[in-house]
Amino acid sequence: MGRKFSVWNRIFGVFGMSDRPLAAIILAAGQGTRMKSETHKVLHPIAGKPMLHHLLDTVDSIGVERTVVVVGARREQIEASVEGRNVAIAIQDDQLGTGHAVAQAHDALKGFAGDVLILYGDVPMVSAATMQEMIFRLNNGSDPRAVVLGFRPDDAGSYGRIIADDQGEIEKMVEFKDANEAERAVNLCNSGLMAVRSTDLFILLDQISNDNAAGEYYLPDIVMLPGQNSAVIEVDDPAEVAGVNSRSELAAVESEWQFRRRAKAMADGVSLIAPETVFFCYDTDVSSDVVIEPNVIFGPGVSIASGAKIYGHSHIEGAAIGPDTNVGPFARLRPGAVLEEGSKVGNFVEMKKTTLGKGAKANHLTYLGDAEVGEGANIGAGTITCNYDGFFKYRTKIGKGAFIGSNSALVAPVTIGDGAIVGAGAALTKDVAADDLALVRAEQSGKAGWAKKFRETMTMKKAGK
Amino acid sequence: MGRKFSVWNRIFGVFGMSDRPLAAIILAAGQGTRMKSETHKVLHPIAGKPMLHHLLDTVDSIGVERTVVVVGARREQIEASVEGRNVAIAIQDDQLGTGHAVAQAHDALKGFAGDVLILYGDVPMVSAATMQEMIFRLNNGSDPRAVVLGFRPDDAGSYGRIIADDQGEIEKMVEFKDANEAERAVNLCNSGLMAVRSTDLFILLDQISNDNAAGEYYLPDIVMLPGQNSAVIEVDDPAEVAGVNSRSELAAVESEWQFRRRAKAMADGVSLIAPETVFFCYDTDVSSDVVIEPNVIFGPGVSIASGAKIYGHSHIEGAAIGPDTNVGPFARLRPGAVLEEGSKVGNFVEMKKTTLGKGAKANHLTYLGDAEVGEGANIGAGTITCNYDGFFKYRTKIGKGAFIGSNSALVAPVTIGDGAIVGAGAALTKDVAADDLALVRAEQSGKAGWAKKFRETMTMKKAGK
Amino acid sequence: MGRKFSVWNRIFGVFGMSDRPLAAIILAAGQGTRMKSETHKVLHPIAGKPMLHHLLDTVDSIGVERTVVVVGARREQIEASVEGRNVAIAIQDDQLGTGHAVAQAHDALKGFAGDVLILYGDVPMVSAATMQEMIFRLNNGSDPRAVVLGFRPDDAGSYGRIIADDQGEIEKMVEFKDANEAERAVNLCNSGLMAVRSTDLFILLDQISNDNAAGEYYLPDIVMLPGQNSAVIEVDDPAEVAGVNSRSELAAVESEWQFRRRAKAMADGVSLIAPETVFFCYDTDVSSDVVIEPNVIFGPGVSIASGAKIYGHSHIEGAAIGPDTNVGPFARLRPGAVLEEGSKVGNFVEMKKTTLGKGAKANHLTYLGDAEVGEGANIGAGTITCNYDGFFKYRTKIGKGAFIGSNSALVAPVTIGDGAIVGAGAALTKDVAADDLALVRAEQSGKAGWAKKFRETMTMKKAGK
Repeated sequence: MGRKFSVWNRIFGVFGMSDRPLAAIILAAGQGTRMKSETHKVLHPIAGKPMLHHLLDTVDSIGVERTVVVVGARREQIEASVEGRNVAIAIQDDQLGTGHAVAQAHDALKGFAGDVLILYGDVPMVSAATMQEMIFRLNNGSDPRAVVLGFRPDDAGSYGRIIADDQGEIEKMVEFKDANEAERAVNLCNSGLMAVRSTDLFILLDQISNDNAAGEYYLPDIVMLPGQNSAVIEVDDPAEVAGVNSRSELAAVESEWQFRRRAKAMADGVSLIAPETVFFCYDTDVSSDVVIEPNVIFGPGVSIASGAKIYGHSHIEGAAIGPDTNVGPFARLRPGAVLEEGSKVGNFVEMKKTTLGKGAKANHLTYLGDAEVGEGANIGAGTITCNYDGFFKYRTKIGKGAFIGSNSALVAPVTIGDGAIVGAGAALTKDVAADDLALVRAEQSGKAGWAKKFRETMTMKKAGK
Repeated sequence: MGRKFSVWNRIFGVFGMSDRPLAAIILAAGQGTRMKSETHKVLHPIAGKPMLHHLLDTVDSIGVERTVVVVGARREQIEASVEGRNVAIAIQDDQLGTGHAVAQAHDALKGFAGDVLILYGDVPMVSAATMQEMIFRLNNGSDPRAVVLGFRPDDAGSYGRIIADDQGEIEKMVEFKDANEAERAVNLCNSGLMAVRSTDLFILLDQISNDNAAGEYYLPDIVMLPGQNSAVIEVDDPAEVAGVNSRSELAAVESEWQFRRRAKAMADGVSLIAPETVFFCYDTDVSSDVVIEPNVIFGPGVSIASGAKIYGHSHIEGAAIGPDTNVGPFARLRPGAVLEEGSKVGNFVEMKKTTLGKGAKANHLTYLGDAEVGEGANIGAGTITCNYDGFFKYRTKIGKGAFIGSNSALVAPVTIGDGAIVGAGAALTKDVAADDLALVRAEQSGKAGWAKKFRETMTMKKAGK
Repeated sequence: MGRKFSVWNRIFGVFGMSDRPLAAIILAAGQGTRMKSETHKVLHPIAGKPMLHHLLDTVDSIGVERTVVVVGARREQIEASVEGRNVAIAIQDDQLGTGHAVAQAHDALKGFAGDVLILYGDVPMVSAATMQEMIFRLNNGSDPRAVVLGFRPDDAGSYGRIIADDQGEIEKMVEFKDANEAERAVNLCNSGLMAVRSTDLFILLDQISNDNAAGEYYLPDIVMLPGQNSAVIEVDDPAEVAGVNSRSELAAVESEWQFRRRAKAMADGVSLIAPETVFFCYDTDVSSDVVIEPNVIFGPGVSIASGAKIYGHSHIEGAAIGPDTNVGPFARLRPGAVLEEGSKVGNFVEMKKTTLGKGAKANHLTYLGDAEVGEGANIGAGTITCNYDGFFKYRTKIGKGAFIGSNSALVAPVTIGDGAIVGAGAALTKDVAADDLALVRAEQSGKAGWAKKFRETMTMKKAGK
């Protein structure tokens, strides 16, 4: 059976990565028709990051030097997505099987000598540890030709089976349809992922044939070619090799990711009152002693310091939430929202590119965009920073300890000095000096008895309708 | 055992519905006391539609000509609910058993000759295919007297058992309490649903007795009367015959419905990041390549075109959401909301009877009611259409490319021309011509140093408190 | 095996609590390091109430006369939390085991003669019935020295096992690590909870030793001391004895609590469309025929009368919601919100210390704080009560049938008479008499063609950028 990493570790002594160069080939040429999407399958996101980029980030993290993505249809989407990254693109024009797909990486790997990981753009959750274990096994023990990543699903169903001995030496890899009763009873399955030396890979691929029902070149066939044995190692967590071929499978992988992320948050000292209702992003950074109420959604770029409380029904992205702050309920923090220590953002409040100073408050029905709010300032209910004229954005500066009366429109660019007060209902267009009061308000007038007459008239009109 | 539809289809060759007339009797005379509700049990909704109407719509869809609802207590609620539908009401004054209840439909079916489906108002999820299969079986094969719908639950518990042969010919129907060990081991259970020919039904009902512990006339007793055999067919999905006797069971059926609806949406190419948090309505119409974030609730009458993104924490009913639009987070769309291509509705925005033109935006803290917003118009944060004077509603028209400054109140009826600009903070009561600027704003005034003095005074006052 | 309460009840005849005095010792001296929290573990909340207070409320409910909480680190937090309650604090300076911890309660129980319950601050969900059953067993049947509360988990894992006879007489209590195969096969586990007579407790504790690997005094050792037998009773619902050592376990206990509370609500006639998305607080009081949409969060102090409908995405605490009211979606009710019969609070509306009279409406984007709204009044969209000047809060009074135009700021203290109308966009600072119209509004002015010129200028400027 396939040994797990810890076992190999025990067998081979202290674990140390080889310093042989690493490359990765990521297959992403499938049609993805079951997704029913104009977007390339591997660009659909898990936890806010495209599947492909989960893999790219993981291979980067283990020091892969060269990464080749093999693309087919919609390759322009992939190319745009990896722009600026250290990624080579190889094109598979015809869909002639996984072996053929890997072979297309040949030119892009010219001059590379080392170990090659073969990955799948739609199997995005493979961990760095698993990749390292594959490489480690390739260079240790029986010195296998290839290392196959196996997994044991709850229901092996029609997955291809791997028949191996106690040391993980592969005796046979067999498609389910070709397997006999005894082989089907084995529940070690082939994930498709492999590690192979670059010096072997393309030579082996040249030896496989497409002499099968589908007329395709199958990558796993390199394992059973005559010569050196291959080995299997088993992934600890089968969820790592879950594939995504449909939106349901996409949702299932997201769900597994979220489950693990929530468990990690709780282990780190974060209170999640209803963990199943909190949706983290791939890069959410939460400190201990943060409390998160139910129904909170995180987008990219969020950090939360200790002592913060995030109330329910909040939607948060690109925000730096400082210590001992209160957020929500019903807060919407957008990129560039910065909450300094002890500040509060309440219900139906939106912040964007705005810093809320220490202890400052914006508790109700407010829009703060492109603004700087000083320490201890109080932003009244219904305050709107008018930051846009249809062409450009302008900044609002509110001084320390300033008090903005409710229902005010602050027409940017505008500066309100420290300690200034703006009377309720102002549409403020000019700066206010420190410690001044500013008012923009018409006289209150009245018409005695008018409401009564209006009501009488309208009641009759409505009745006559 | 009871054959499934596909099996019967294979046995009897190409499937074709009989052209015999169809009727349905829906029993809805139970007290529903466990619901603890002033509302009749069968009027409680699943996916936003009363249980009874799920059944009525299904029987309509298969061409049922006459539908009789048998009612008892609170029949006035049922009558009001089916007003305008092609439904007859039969009254069961005394609760003398299901056989007695069905017998009350006799007069309402006078003159009808054909096949009769017997359904239950609190078993609302039976599919059209299952109903058709029952009718098909009634008129094919062994020519049974009655067709009983059987199901195989995970736990057969104390359901009545059906003992049948390989062809689904019923040998015995037995209540759990009367069943022997061998009979209890059978897990084919009686759902209570039946198909019977109208020419047989009432004759059979006349033959059953109430000679039992409860003194009731039991509908299933017609199966075991001497003479012709009856047959059982088995429902594919046991969830179709789940009954609702309590709010918990109501929630369970809702949950099953939502589960299936979400799976369908994903199969259709809709991305649900957290499917378990999206609540569809019975008639929600979603195209492929729509993305729906967590925590979205749909009411009746929603359609969503391809490329739309629905952000989290949104509440949407009666809305036509066009292609490539953005909705939410925290959007509330009410009946009559129309979003044309590429338009955007942002956070804390409510729309009702309002059309948002191509590419128009209402991104923050806004109420748009009874309004028409032209192509490319920009509605500033905090804009309110004042559409109601306490008696009547009035319309607001905003022209193409118009720009409404933040925190404006547009007092309807009012028209803002194409390309016009309304300055922030306006309470607008008169029309604005195209390309004009409109302002409603008092002068800004100030009192130097006033805020400081105020602070000093109040600080002392508070300290003295 | 341990008998359940109902069984003992049958054995000993009519159930009657002894009238012997009751005391409780609650151990709360653990470090709680796995919580990674500055807050004492037993002060983390379940359903909005600290774990410790769940226990305190339960022991109060069964008439416990003296309660001793044994504290160690962070005892000041515990002391502050129980201030004003009838609770004695005992200090355990060194962590020498559970037996040692209980012994610290000796002085606090001086002069007490009766039965003592030994409870754990991090095992908060033990029911009153279970506590009563323990006391009942202590004083009945075999007259045991101590009563141990046993439970049968789905997976007994490494819990200590209880070997007992048919009458619940304990033969042996054994740690998992010391148990033999046969003992491990027993799935009756030790929860740690006990009932002991005060006259025995401290004498027994004096007899146990710390002669074990950890050098600790173990409370369970009193059971196996020579002399009189002890008995075990088995808890009906193992969830009652779930312990909380981490945030994950905290979330798990919360989840179990919510599951039961939702089931109770539905049994009481409350419709929960998606029960798993409704989060009750420990004291939420909901009548029958209330409908709650998905995603509603309750804080403390909420009551909801029959006929109310709570729409989705609402956040409600400290609110009295009257009959036939509508709340939400997106409502935020804070302490002191009172909704009288038939009133409506709509989307993006916040209420605090405010009474909304019969049939009154505040449907959109509004903040009502420190206000009184008369019967039938209509609060327009975007209305803000300006209740705070940075130092004090002031009240707003709105009369019966008054109509507040949209986007108004009501600067408190201010009174608006019955039937008065406030024009849209007012910043109201003076009282309005009954039936009067009040306006605060500048003249509307315009600049013909200005918008067009502005657009041309800005377009050029942007292009030149």
